[in-house]
Amino acid sequence: MIITFKKDVPAIEVEKIKKSFSEKGLTVNLIQGTDFNVIGIVGDTSKIDTSSYEANPYVDHVTRVAAPYKLANRIYHPEDSIIKVGNLQIGARDELIIIAGPCSVESREQLWEIGSGVKNAGASVLRGGAYKPRTSPYAFQGLQTEGILLLKEAGAQFKMPIVSELMSLDKLDEFVEHVDLIQIGARNMQNYELLKAVGNTKKPILLKRGFSNTIEEWLLSAEYILNNGNPNVILCERGIRTFESATRSTLDLSVIPLVKKKSHLPIIIDPSHASGNWELVESVSLAAIAAGADGLMIEVHNHPEAALSDGAQSLKINNFERLMGKGKKIAEIIGRKVV
Amino acid sequence: MIITFKKDVPAIEVEKIKKSFSEKGLTVNLIQGTDFNVIGIVGDTSKIDTSSYEANPYVDHVTRVAAPYKLANRIYHPEDSIIKVGNLQIGARDELIIIAGPCSVESREQLWEIGSGVKNAGASVLRGGAYKPRTSPYAFQGLQTEGILLLKEAGAQFKMPIVSELMSLDKLDEFVEHVDLIQIGARNMQNYELLKAVGNTKKPILLKRGFSNTIEEWLLSAEYILNNGNPNVILCERGIRTFESATRSTLDLSVIPLVKKKSHLPIIIDPSHASGNWELVESVSLAAIAAGADGLMIEVHNHPEAALSDGAQSLKINNFERLMGKGKKIAEIIGRKVV
Amino acid sequence: MIITFKKDVPAIEVEKIKKSFSEKGLTVNLIQGTDFNVIGIVGDTSKIDTSSYEANPYVDHVTRVAAPYKLANRIYHPEDSIIKVGNLQIGARDELIIIAGPCSVESREQLWEIGSGVKNAGASVLRGGAYKPRTSPYAFQGLQTEGILLLKEAGAQFKMPIVSELMSLDKLDEFVEHVDLIQIGARNMQNYELLKAVGNTKKPILLKRGFSNTIEEWLLSAEYILNNGNPNVILCERGIRTFESATRSTLDLSVIPLVKKKSHLPIIIDPSHASGNWELVESVSLAAIAAGADGLMIEVHNHPEAALSDGAQSLKINNFERLMGKGKKIAEIIGRKVV
Amino acid sequence: MIITFKKDVPAIEVEKIKKSFSEKGLTVNLIQGTDFNVIGIVGDTSKIDTSSYEANPYVDHVTRVAAPYKLANRIYHPEDSIIKVGNLQIGARDELIIIAGPCSVESREQLWEIGSGVKNAGASVLRGGAYKPRTSPYAFQGLQTEGILLLKEAGAQFKMPIVSELMSLDKLDEFVEHVDLIQIGARNMQNYELLKAVGNTKKPILLKRGFSNTIEEWLLSAEYILNNGNPNVILCERGIRTFESATRSTLDLSVIPLVKKKSHLPIIIDPSHASGNWELVESVSLAAIAAGADGLMIEVHNHPEAALSDGAQSLKINNFERLMGKGKKIAEIIGRKVV
Repeated sequence: MIITFKKDVPAIEVEKIKKSFSEKGLTVNLIQGTDFNVIGIVGDTSKIDTSSYEANPYVDHVTRVAAPYKLANRIYHPEDSIIKVGNLQIGARDELIIIAGPCSVESREQLWEIGSGVKNAGASVLRGGAYKPRTSPYAFQGLQTEGILLLKEAGAQFKMPIVSELMSLDKLDEFVEHVDLIQIGARNMQNYELLKAVGNTKKPILLKRGFSNTIEEWLLSAEYILNNGNPNVILCERGIRTFESATRSTLDLSVIPLVKKKSHLPIIIDPSHASGNWELVESVSLAAIAAGADGLMIEVHNHPEAALSDGAQSLKINNFERLMGKGKKIAEIIGRKVV
Repeated sequence: MIITFKKDVPAIEVEKIKKSFSEKGLTVNLIQGTDFNVIGIVGDTSKIDTSSYEANPYVDHVTRVAAPYKLANRIYHPEDSIIKVGNLQIGARDELIIIAGPCSVESREQLWEIGSGVKNAGASVLRGGAYKPRTSPYAFQGLQTEGILLLKEAGAQFKMPIVSELMSLDKLDEFVEHVDLIQIGARNMQNYELLKAVGNTKKPILLKRGFSNTIEEWLLSAEYILNNGNPNVILCERGIRTFESATRSTLDLSVIPLVKKKSHLPIIIDPSHASGNWELVESVSLAAIAAGADGLMIEVHNHPEAALSDGAQSLKINNFERLMGKGKKIAEIIGRKVV
Repeated sequence: MIITFKKDVPAIEVEKIKKSFSEKGLTVNLIQGTDFNVIGIVGDTSKIDTSSYEANPYVDHVTRVAAPYKLANRIYHPEDSIIKVGNLQIGARDELIIIAGPCSVESREQLWEIGSGVKNAGASVLRGGAYKPRTSPYAFQGLQTEGILLLKEAGAQFKMPIVSELMSLDKLDEFVEHVDLIQIGARNMQNYELLKAVGNTKKPILLKRGFSNTIEEWLLSAEYILNNGNPNVILCERGIRTFESATRSTLDLSVIPLVKKKSHLPIIIDPSHASGNWELVESVSLAAIAAGADGLMIEVHNHPEAALSDGAQSLKINNFERLMGKGKKIAEIIGRKVV
Repeated sequence: MIITFKKDVPAIEVEKIKKSFSEKGLTVNLIQGTDFNVIGIVGDTSKIDTSSYEANPYVDHVTRVAAPYKLANRIYHPEDSIIKVGNLQIGARDELIIIAGPCSVESREQLWEIGSGVKNAGASVLRGGAYKPRTSPYAFQGLQTEGILLLKEAGAQFKMPIVSELMSLDKLDEFVEHVDLIQIGARNMQNYELLKAVGNTKKPILLKRGFSNTIEEWLLSAEYILNNGNPNVILCERGIRTFESATRSTLDLSVIPLVKKKSHLPIIIDPSHASGNWELVESVSLAAIAAGADGLMIEVHNHPEAALSDGAQSLKINNFERLMGKGKKIAEIIGRKVV
């Protein structure tokens, strides 16, 4: 940690701050600059609250050198984490996992048609929302428990593990019992009580990046789960919010190599929420594979014009098949096999 | 609602969509353009899922004319809402409410010193965090129930209603019992289960804007609370996230007149989280008063350099007093009295 | 164009506005809504200033239905534009063009080593900056005319057309004489005098997207060039500015299929400026190819640690070769050949 | 400057980099951390290109301690700069300057009516655009030389210095001859050739912040002007671009105290472009005064519904008068007088 003092700080004030660190067992180095004095603090500073130092009127700013997360940090865990979901493994460098299914579970008929379609095209995990975080209180809120049970039945039928989004603490038991991979949605990425709760299970967690959160904040949210004892975290990027409104979100695929440098956790991409428009999903999906994603999560619907949510971004089954055809070939070139 | 078709849409496809609306009892008007056909749908479209229409390959885009919120909308509720908090009223055009106190309740000694200081300077509501949403799992997480009880005792002592942040469903009863004004924090603005739960009480709710949410999304979150039967919503702006990192958030005060046009709910400003830097708080606070805010919520600490959270943005008590001196005079000029 | 009136607009005010449009020869359709009145204006509205209508106190908002650009619009020009640069063609659906070279031309030795390296690896256009837009006045500003002449000589030597950035009107003649493809940089995307000036030539123009400009604004800047008589515009995306600071810019590759829907102009991707970090360039480049880019522009340096600008994002020649190896194979899968 | 190395950097690589700095006459301090090695470089590093160090595969990141601008930096110029414009002074702590006038000069009649109106209401500088940077090539581009001459005549008539926007190098002489305060618009904030050119004059320059530029970049653009020998720079903030589209721009007034900390240059606020909506202008203007702005620049029109540009954000004269009435009183409270 580096503390830069303001110009003309009295020596005694520097000493006071140096002392506050040495008392915590940290080593302090002073660099006397031309205009600024700077101190470097050596040791584990992850528990230091930088804000209280910034409150000091003689301090100009505080810069962290080390990332504030430990358990999610590749430096202390150099090998890739591989997370078991049902019989699958997510995060292996030579494999690519495709998760597909409807935005919302709407009915048995709908789910079976889509489930059968995506399974045949090569998807290996079935997605489906049962509790839906909708911006408007007047929008379809999901089939809830009925949706979870239908999804579980479909998963068994098509021999696919299932993933669904958990929105609140009071449904945790239901999810632990029925769902193979528990999704924490973008809007809940910083719902710390929920993170702690899923951290107390051993279930695989799919942690979506908040649409306005930095990569560092995302890894700190993963750290909440890891720190509570659950190592089974899979990251899922779905785009961030920017000034550009021509797409629903702005998806920067360089997040894939970047996260792989900073962390050992697997990372998958959600091209559907990123683009918000089915006409863009194929391009973005192929790009994500080429960029090295460990998996994709794609919304597919048998009849998007009648979907109760997110129809605009859902692929029809035949378009999903076409995408899978190309995707498998690109995966091969970068040394991955769709499993 | 306006639907713009792509060029060369077959007439039959336009008819299908027109029919889907008339079957819902809505009136449809066709405008035949030079290059585009457009239909306008008249009636209550707030429950229509626009995404399913955008899924139609013949549709270019869908535009809402009416705001998607009803209960929060000034059009259907022209007079200002005035919300009772303890003996105070928030939202009256000729009054200005100052909420002040520490970021976190840390100890009895700290809270009493700050409480006494802000009361004397003219604040009328006491704030203090007991459950803290911290980005890092290693940061101070708050005194929890002990903090709530201390805050309640301080509120009674200084005759100030109290406000504190609720982070999860399982603490709702505790807050309903002890807290006068329940804060929903920025990170939980779209935690819909929490919104529904506080909507089922009659408690005044301070709904912070998410740091990456649009004004429309914010009013839709208010709508969740109102729609569940609780009319007592106060909006609180605390800045949004942008590319500029010189301040913690970017606070646009034009949100005040804008929200007052769109909604009848009171709006207060949090200059502390917005700027993240105590040296900026006075300027921003005076500006917020001049812009017509119904209130301010300001972080004050007796010893910011030792604060367990947000020290950098906390005013010392003497600086808070100075701000109050100027703020009262500016309030007068725009016809408000600090109560 | 759609104009939505405020609630309770007097009929006479609607009439006045309707009349103002009919006097311009446009057809006006009124839709009487439950709460709002809306008028739809049919005809060429591209020259209408919407702001003056928004100034009307009875108008709530104005929405354009048609894109405000005409010449860049695919609707009026359905076939792809293919732009000739030297002996190459940019924009053909089955070809992929690789532009490579140093950020800045620094010396003959540097340029020849890089030029030879990228040519051998399969690049077909040589890039090199001679006039450099640097954020700091104290940074290296480029070799200027000497750089242009060196670049021209290297282009001749390696049989590659050359591209370089034009920063001001007074150098236009120099560029027209010596440079094959004139780049307008991101910071000048809305320098309209420069756009008009290059629009008065017939030179191919590489128009970078401003790092904070919408796709619509970008196409309107292209429209300035096209409207002045120069049809040879190639678009180049280099990422936009967002709250995320872990990368230099945020690059959303869905811009490729999106721009191809909206416009007939070719689009190439600059992965170097987008990521700002050479370790990310390979992933992003492969992704851009998979997403359907018409070309890439990549910064390559023989000795990045000694580069006078943008060393951090420059690939070494061997890394560029590795990227080209994989890139060619991915291009093949989506039906393109590197030429 | 601080360089953080990656974990396990070989000692020889640290030595190489240390040597590269000592050869430039800079002092280097090594801090041996638990996981990271860090070096601090002392001396004038403003001319160091950090990117080449980041290119080093052993370097994790480079952080500047000192701001990269010198002449604009308050540290080296502690007293406020006060800039003379005609007979006025901009930047004095006890004065407030109001600039007002139309977006575009449209006609003698329009300009005289507005000029007389704003003069009577208390404005002291007359604004008017003659060369207009319009997003669309089909929009009104300004009266050009005729507009400048009309503005000059109106300025003489009403005894107000005039300000207008310069868009390209070739009109510099015209502006130097006729205009009292030369505006560099937001879109040209990083048009470095234009900055150098106005830096070679002694004219007062009004430098608008680009709508997507950081405060640091803005001050570096000021540095270009100062470094070329012109000390007469006035900064003008007009809001930045964010995800929120309910206003034209997002204006954070904490920029005022922040810029005053970092720089000695005066700062004025443009509430019209910031909000894009005349109904918000009064609130934002009063807020800017309360926040400590050295001046305001406000668009006023005699007939906004017929304005050829930016009608939506233009105040009518009577609304401007009302704003001035309140603004003067708020200015008094913070110790300023409208001159």
